[in-house]
Amino acid sequence: MHTLYNRIQGRNLERLAALSDGIFAVAMTLLVLDLHIPSAANVHSEQELMYALGALGPQWIAYLMSFLTLGIFWAGQQTQLNHIGEGTRDLMWIHLGFLFAITLMPLSTRLLAEFITYRAALGIYWLNIFLPGAMLYWSWKYATRAGLIKADTPQEVRASICKRVFIAQSLYAGGAALCVINTWVSIAAIVLVQLNYAIAPRLWRHSK
Amino acid sequence: MHTLYNRIQGRNLERLAALSDGIFAVAMTLLVLDLHIPSAANVHSEQELMYALGALGPQWIAYLMSFLTLGIFWAGQQTQLNHIGEGTRDLMWIHLGFLFAITLMPLSTRLLAEFITYRAALGIYWLNIFLPGAMLYWSWKYATRAGLIKADTPQEVRASICKRVFIAQSLYAGGAALCVINTWVSIAAIVLVQLNYAIAPRLWRHSK
Amino acid sequence: MHTLYNRIQGRNLERLAALSDGIFAVAMTLLVLDLHIPSAANVHSEQELMYALGALGPQWIAYLMSFLTLGIFWAGQQTQLNHIGEGTRDLMWIHLGFLFAITLMPLSTRLLAEFITYRAALGIYWLNIFLPGAMLYWSWKYATRAGLIKADTPQEVRASICKRVFIAQSLYAGGAALCVINTWVSIAAIVLVQLNYAIAPRLWRHSK
Amino acid sequence: MHTLYNRIQGRNLERLAALSDGIFAVAMTLLVLDLHIPSAANVHSEQELMYALGALGPQWIAYLMSFLTLGIFWAGQQTQLNHIGEGTRDLMWIHLGFLFAITLMPLSTRLLAEFITYRAALGIYWLNIFLPGAMLYWSWKYATRAGLIKADTPQEVRASICKRVFIAQSLYAGGAALCVINTWVSIAAIVLVQLNYAIAPRLWRHSK
Repeated sequence: MHTLYNRIQGRNLERLAALSDGIFAVAMTLLVLDLHIPSAANVHSEQELMYALGALGPQWIAYLMSFLTLGIFWAGQQTQLNHIGEGTRDLMWIHLGFLFAITLMPLSTRLLAEFITYRAALGIYWLNIFLPGAMLYWSWKYATRAGLIKADTPQEVRASICKRVFIAQSLYAGGAALCVINTWVSIAAIVLVQLNYAIAPRLWRHSK
Repeated sequence: MHTLYNRIQGRNLERLAALSDGIFAVAMTLLVLDLHIPSAANVHSEQELMYALGALGPQWIAYLMSFLTLGIFWAGQQTQLNHIGEGTRDLMWIHLGFLFAITLMPLSTRLLAEFITYRAALGIYWLNIFLPGAMLYWSWKYATRAGLIKADTPQEVRASICKRVFIAQSLYAGGAALCVINTWVSIAAIVLVQLNYAIAPRLWRHSK
Repeated sequence: MHTLYNRIQGRNLERLAALSDGIFAVAMTLLVLDLHIPSAANVHSEQELMYALGALGPQWIAYLMSFLTLGIFWAGQQTQLNHIGEGTRDLMWIHLGFLFAITLMPLSTRLLAEFITYRAALGIYWLNIFLPGAMLYWSWKYATRAGLIKADTPQEVRASICKRVFIAQSLYAGGAALCVINTWVSIAAIVLVQLNYAIAPRLWRHSK
Repeated sequence: MHTLYNRIQGRNLERLAALSDGIFAVAMTLLVLDLHIPSAANVHSEQELMYALGALGPQWIAYLMSFLTLGIFWAGQQTQLNHIGEGTRDLMWIHLGFLFAITLMPLSTRLLAEFITYRAALGIYWLNIFLPGAMLYWSWKYATRAGLIKADTPQEVRASICKRVFIAQSLYAGGAALCVINTWVSIAAIVLVQLNYAIAPRLWRHSK
């Protein structure tokens, strides 16, 4: 019954990009709302202020890690959309699912900052990295199958997008699995994987 | 007295789309701000954390339902705007009314999460689904009457947009009416209708 | 010393429009964050919930009024930018001043909702309507003097934009002045002026 | 290993601009969320309300200063992006670093408002001005070296962008250093530098 309507919906990839940019922008900025600052009532000298700020360390690590995560997913989604020529209703809902996972990131971050030594908190945080990755994987598979990818996209690019999601997610899963030792080891591993995606390739290329 | 000014206002459909995307992005991300996480002071083991998270179930259901609602309305408004060639001041104010209802969604969601067994909370939530639907219906009727619809829009599309709003709203109203039995039955019915609009048509089409 | 740099800055009206849409979207949605819902601890029946929601009346009036204000200013700024062909650094800073006043709107609204019978709160709220109006007036005067207005803008449009700001602001000032009687009278007058700008012209035109 | 993927990522400068506008819009509007209004419980007359609002002075100064800072950086980034013809993955991550610093601004502002007489708070605030400046400097240096700058950009413009960041940051650093005397002197100096960048050039040009 909805066939016709469904065919006319979701065509506008620009509005999907605009909604995505908006959600990423809000999520990135909201992360910081959960960073608590010391209260003036408990601080009586410059030293106490420095000390109180230092004690917020775990919060900051969780915050930095989440900003990196959001940056990586924003870049990944953008790369896909740049190579997709046309939208469909299905593609739109896959990306809404992706964005749903993104909106949960400030919450997972808050949970991890509050319970940074708990494996359950780390597991939920990892799920929040896994879920958008899975949606992006699905999105590219779907777009390939449905013939939505721009004709001028080279074959290597087509292949590399899914491979990249797969490798990155394997590394994240490996990092998360390290929580059998300790959540701190696990967090360090995840941050290293993220920095690899954000920074290292730049160094490698410079040495090219 | 304002005739000239009114004729020159509201032409820019792109800025209306940008404002809409911004409001939807903020509303979708703000929903999550109202999800409370357990406090570290009350949790002393991994199991207690899992249990405390599980106890937040009603919050999560309300959150998921609201994200679906926002996604459905975002897609619906986008479909309309894609087929409207030119804006007017009246159209702009109809859509501002639509967006007004959208900004209330995080509040209705919070109310429903807090009072999930109260019919009054469910009734207000339903009103918050009905109101944007009514504005979209009005928007399309107005655009048709004022001749703003793009010439290349097929007759079936023109008809299907209003029919779809009408059928969807009837289903939501039916779902909301089930609260005479129990608010949980009602919520389940609304979520099913939403999933039907978001996911089911994909399955149907795949089996085509 | 900054002459060259200043000449190359602020050209991009599209990014100014995008920033404005973002700020309006956030401000419109944040308004609702300040609406308090009753606490489950104080409500024990459906009737108590209805009653508790009804008691929030003043909040709702302030919220609705602020949404209308933001909508009117968003439409007004958009109309100006549609007729301006090119940006300059000065124009950009005038509009940043305008946006500064817009970001204060959620705060003035909260203040008015909390102190709805206080003239000081109403005076500050009125200032928050006056300030963006003054910036828009300045923006158009500046754009006219600097020759930034698109050549195809008819003379009547050029004149009508400033006149409209002037008349609207006089009506708002008159409404605010009614607070010598009572803040409620004043609020009613301001809302009537706003509805006149948002809705009434539609009725007038329909009867044309 | 990631070479191919890295070459195809980050091309879309429009989406970078959209994300930036979103983050600036949210950050500018969130600043105001931290401004506390007096509580109705503690205010019993018009005079007490005026007095209570006046006592919030330090908050307002920090808020105004942060809005100016954000406006200056938004304008600065926009000027750069207008002259960059093509994006790369590296450029994207430099700008994500810039945006990271921007999202911290509401937090530094809150910290400064709470501890306005503490040098540590001022030092952190200054760092939050220095960091985005350094990223913009890096961004332009990188774009120059990588040949991403539009061919039609005059040589003087190319030189003036880095010089401007350098001079502005020296003035901010000088202002921040004045906190050896007193944080208020330091804040006054920073605000003066900001107003110089926002307003003074306009006056100078008018007198041209």
